[in-house]
Amino acid sequence: MVTSPVPPVIDLRSDTVTRPDDTMRSAMSSAEVGDNVIDTDPTMRELERRAATVLGMPAALWTPSGTMANLIALSIQLSRGDRFLAPRDAHVLVNELGSAAWLAGGMPEPLDHDAGPGRPSPRALRAAVGPREVPYYGLRTSLLCLENTHNAAGGAVTPPHEHARLVALAKDAGLRVHLDGARLWHAAVTLGVLPAALTVGVDTVSACFSKGLGAPVGSVLAGSAEFIEQARRMRHMLGGGVRQGGILAAACLLALDRVDELAESHAAARQLAEGLTELGWQVVEPQTNIVLAPVADLAMTLDSLRSLHVLASPMAGKVRFVTHRDISAADIDEVLRRIKAAA
Amino acid sequence: MVTSPVPPVIDLRSDTVTRPDDTMRSAMSSAEVGDNVIDTDPTMRELERRAATVLGMPAALWTPSGTMANLIALSIQLSRGDRFLAPRDAHVLVNELGSAAWLAGGMPEPLDHDAGPGRPSPRALRAAVGPREVPYYGLRTSLLCLENTHNAAGGAVTPPHEHARLVALAKDAGLRVHLDGARLWHAAVTLGVLPAALTVGVDTVSACFSKGLGAPVGSVLAGSAEFIEQARRMRHMLGGGVRQGGILAAACLLALDRVDELAESHAAARQLAEGLTELGWQVVEPQTNIVLAPVADLAMTLDSLRSLHVLASPMAGKVRFVTHRDISAADIDEVLRRIKAAA
Amino acid sequence: MVTSPVPPVIDLRSDTVTRPDDTMRSAMSSAEVGDNVIDTDPTMRELERRAATVLGMPAALWTPSGTMANLIALSIQLSRGDRFLAPRDAHVLVNELGSAAWLAGGMPEPLDHDAGPGRPSPRALRAAVGPREVPYYGLRTSLLCLENTHNAAGGAVTPPHEHARLVALAKDAGLRVHLDGARLWHAAVTLGVLPAALTVGVDTVSACFSKGLGAPVGSVLAGSAEFIEQARRMRHMLGGGVRQGGILAAACLLALDRVDELAESHAAARQLAEGLTELGWQVVEPQTNIVLAPVADLAMTLDSLRSLHVLASPMAGKVRFVTHRDISAADIDEVLRRIKAAA
Amino acid sequence: MVTSPVPPVIDLRSDTVTRPDDTMRSAMSSAEVGDNVIDTDPTMRELERRAATVLGMPAALWTPSGTMANLIALSIQLSRGDRFLAPRDAHVLVNELGSAAWLAGGMPEPLDHDAGPGRPSPRALRAAVGPREVPYYGLRTSLLCLENTHNAAGGAVTPPHEHARLVALAKDAGLRVHLDGARLWHAAVTLGVLPAALTVGVDTVSACFSKGLGAPVGSVLAGSAEFIEQARRMRHMLGGGVRQGGILAAACLLALDRVDELAESHAAARQLAEGLTELGWQVVEPQTNIVLAPVADLAMTLDSLRSLHVLASPMAGKVRFVTHRDISAADIDEVLRRIKAAA
Repeated sequence: MVTSPVPPVIDLRSDTVTRPDDTMRSAMSSAEVGDNVIDTDPTMRELERRAATVLGMPAALWTPSGTMANLIALSIQLSRGDRFLAPRDAHVLVNELGSAAWLAGGMPEPLDHDAGPGRPSPRALRAAVGPREVPYYGLRTSLLCLENTHNAAGGAVTPPHEHARLVALAKDAGLRVHLDGARLWHAAVTLGVLPAALTVGVDTVSACFSKGLGAPVGSVLAGSAEFIEQARRMRHMLGGGVRQGGILAAACLLALDRVDELAESHAAARQLAEGLTELGWQVVEPQTNIVLAPVADLAMTLDSLRSLHVLASPMAGKVRFVTHRDISAADIDEVLRRIKAAA
Repeated sequence: MVTSPVPPVIDLRSDTVTRPDDTMRSAMSSAEVGDNVIDTDPTMRELERRAATVLGMPAALWTPSGTMANLIALSIQLSRGDRFLAPRDAHVLVNELGSAAWLAGGMPEPLDHDAGPGRPSPRALRAAVGPREVPYYGLRTSLLCLENTHNAAGGAVTPPHEHARLVALAKDAGLRVHLDGARLWHAAVTLGVLPAALTVGVDTVSACFSKGLGAPVGSVLAGSAEFIEQARRMRHMLGGGVRQGGILAAACLLALDRVDELAESHAAARQLAEGLTELGWQVVEPQTNIVLAPVADLAMTLDSLRSLHVLASPMAGKVRFVTHRDISAADIDEVLRRIKAAA
Repeated sequence: MVTSPVPPVIDLRSDTVTRPDDTMRSAMSSAEVGDNVIDTDPTMRELERRAATVLGMPAALWTPSGTMANLIALSIQLSRGDRFLAPRDAHVLVNELGSAAWLAGGMPEPLDHDAGPGRPSPRALRAAVGPREVPYYGLRTSLLCLENTHNAAGGAVTPPHEHARLVALAKDAGLRVHLDGARLWHAAVTLGVLPAALTVGVDTVSACFSKGLGAPVGSVLAGSAEFIEQARRMRHMLGGGVRQGGILAAACLLALDRVDELAESHAAARQLAEGLTELGWQVVEPQTNIVLAPVADLAMTLDSLRSLHVLASPMAGKVRFVTHRDISAADIDEVLRRIKAAA
Repeated sequence: MVTSPVPPVIDLRSDTVTRPDDTMRSAMSSAEVGDNVIDTDPTMRELERRAATVLGMPAALWTPSGTMANLIALSIQLSRGDRFLAPRDAHVLVNELGSAAWLAGGMPEPLDHDAGPGRPSPRALRAAVGPREVPYYGLRTSLLCLENTHNAAGGAVTPPHEHARLVALAKDAGLRVHLDGARLWHAAVTLGVLPAALTVGVDTVSACFSKGLGAPVGSVLAGSAEFIEQARRMRHMLGGGVRQGGILAAACLLALDRVDELAESHAAARQLAEGLTELGWQVVEPQTNIVLAPVADLAMTLDSLRSLHVLASPMAGKVRFVTHRDISAADIDEVLRRIKAAA
């Protein structure tokens, strides 16, 4: 009896699945290191300096995850009795186990995406801010948390002028602004601008090296020098202070060099969206590396994709495909071929 | 020089402004009391027994405020990593300083009022519940918090069959249900049902004696006997354990006897709404004792009412008038007369 | 068959068991009231002004319990990563369900009573403060919490000069100082000084009206005007904002008039201590209204006292008897008679 | 002008300063990896299996730091209103920024080291546990946290029979037991037993790979399979979920192979202690790799050591020297030579 060989798995669940390549492994292997809790790890220091520059902020701090970067940012900038605003389905609202509420201490108010996917309008923001004077027994709106690209909206991009408009409004209303820039690099590449063009006016910004860029572990939180000192303490409180982190920072540094290569993942996402559309799928047009497809039965669709050795994930009730460094144009062709064959 | 006398203030800011009358003061004055922390205050015990019966629950616990009753209910029933659902603008979301988030530990998800004012539809609830199986890194929806009447929706009533439908759905989805019944009495009076008809299926319910019924201080939280034991401990943690509370419980007991008299406040609210409509105001038709009126400039309107010695409050961007025990039909006539004269 | 009548219970478990007398009930019954959440209750305002004056502080805030007063004080003055110092077995350490830790956010460090019962020495304080410069990953000692009288040390008094010395040291070290003065009145009476003589230099102080003075419900927290504004907000967060609190404030005002009468309770405590010593008990000499007696078997002793209809409580492994307004010299005679008869 | 060359720094501040050697770097560089959040990283899985076995527990979870491992353990096992016991100056009490209090939710009670350095006696434990029955308003003692070796007591070892005795007592009293085994390996080496001999009866244990063993980043938390599932969720909440953690796990696996080599660090510590004693220092006899020396002026002593290019750290008011993989017998000779020359 002859059995056909098992076809290789094509993993489009997330761009976090990228693996470090040989160059990156070699950089980690030869990294100069130090004890980054009681002292300073030299490679960490280099990464933090460079990340601050790239993000256009005075200072930066490495964290083991984007979730921790956001958690630290909100914990320091929110107080009990504060309300914060974020676009509906923002990562801090739906993907971080509620720590923005129970640990950082804020009562969230979601903003509608009325200016486009992932993008609240200035009008929506103004309406949500509420009155400036609040009685002592009322919530005080104190922070706006933006997300660029917006994950649950399909990697949707907010352009610099819209960003600037929202930030200006927030500042006028006395709010602080945190930007969840887990995939800020992707927005910058799509828009053809520097990442720093997308952080104008914010107080703090987080960004990830492990999403699509191949670094195994690590994110960064940037802000004022004073804020970063507080963040370092809060990171230690949460158990995120690590010792010879230079091993990981070396990979993050290399990831920073590779931001422009994200254009290839974006092309792969468009290729996938077009192919799926030809096959009769309904698809949200991708702006970066995420393709969302609403389907009749989400669980069943994910299962049948899995039976084709194609891995996707659920997101906001839709199928989510994420392209990344380890996915080539040929892989996308193969995904489309398998789906077509199974149809 | 002759000055006209200052007209008496008519206070429609909230039904919490009601003052105990002589009967109630006398009941307080002669209440039998004991140390309700280390022992049991007999009048407290009587109140808690009677409130449990009226609310159709096995056991009850007095609290100094409705905010504390809700906070205890959510603190015990929510865990870190939990998500809870509540109708948009619910009291626990907008009027309790975020304690449902930072202290109770839940990430809220507001439900649209798509079945009517203050009332989410079964469809909205079902959509919000999300999948039953959640990965270990995902929020778990664990509780539905209803509010009847819904304050920010203008004292809007949810009828028993809608309540039952939502509770059944929540239970099917494995959720616990808390009912914020601060003004449950008002809903019962409007619907012509017993309060217990509006608590069917819930795990816990709070209700207030200080809203419209004249009691100076006090609310109640009801649930299973086991839950109430936990609640007593949590009340003590928050500093809500009081000593000779029987003084206050005596007033709450009397308030319970006066629930039917709320019909007069409801009539006064209708009278006010009709009068304002005749004067050209846009008014949300009142279902209980709250009249909401959207106006062009909220702050200015409240100011000019104040200059007429008529006090109202801001609520969800509208003017809110609340009628109560200390407001007569003649007072409403006088309010309308002053507004008309000033126009 | 003839049965002897049940002898009346003599309740020495705590001075919180005192009941309001007719004068106090009458004052409550005729109190002028208002909505103390959205407005100001006039009797509350009078109480808070007078309590501030008596305590020698700029402003004050009523709270439903001493536990809540302490909790608010610590919550506002402690941050995550802070350490606070308090005499071993202080009420905030052992009697408030840990809220100083989990809610206020401080890691406690107990101070030995090396200067006398309930009284840490300046040396112990200096040693516990630790170095002024702490690395970013180290606890920062930020607050000293004193307790006068010290409950678990048997109502022990700290005299003004010792208090002043500790406060000065704490201030030199950059600490804030909170005084748990639940029974500050008792200390003042024993020392023959005004209560304000015992709050010199502190940032905040709490005191109780329900301990030995007969008020049914209520404590007070005093501090700067700015602090009290924050405290009012925190009180609301915890659910401690009440409406027509004037009913209770009227009793608290009367309690303030009765502070000097505590001397009678102190005499009763001495009478009890002497009587017990004559009966062969080992007794800590009382300084105020608390008599501590170490016994071989605590549970058994409490049980046999209960069989004599004498109620006492366990405290720090000893039997605690507390005298108060509702206990006369004749009651103490009767207690001693029953114990003697049973021996 | 001729200047003498700067002598090399000898870093004895902590055993966390060890750097990965070439073998370890090579292992990291070739590690098989996967996305350890949404999937399982194969090297992580191997590490967690092996660590569980070595620690004698059913399951284990990698964490980025020992602080996070302890924080997760306490957060899951403590509730609000709980009290926990730990030897005075335990790492969870003094070195983790109070997270055991404000985040995990426990009110600590320190135990005296009355059985030896770092070791409370069974009697001290029994006395601290308190009564089994607590009223609803009382703290409930629910957990014992041991530490072996005890850092602030100078790396002091608790032998298996003492450990077993304390655990048995705690279990009898209904407590759970967590063991902070950051340097459990050192205790095992000194005692000549397997690490699992030192975890008998505990519910959970943490251990570190970055202390003295050369691994750059990583600790482990072990317990029941059910506990580890909860811990995985809590780790994600805190932001400790990382992606291709296999890079780090490969180093941790190698560290596990090197436990026996800690004997050399222990010998170096004894060598240092003897040398310092000969030079007239007062020294606590080292049991593992930590040498504590009480000095007249801590800050000055650390400064003058630094001027000799010898780095030590302050610990519990003493100078702490820690030996580790990167310190040879010759380094210790050199340290002693420099101190002698400077004297």
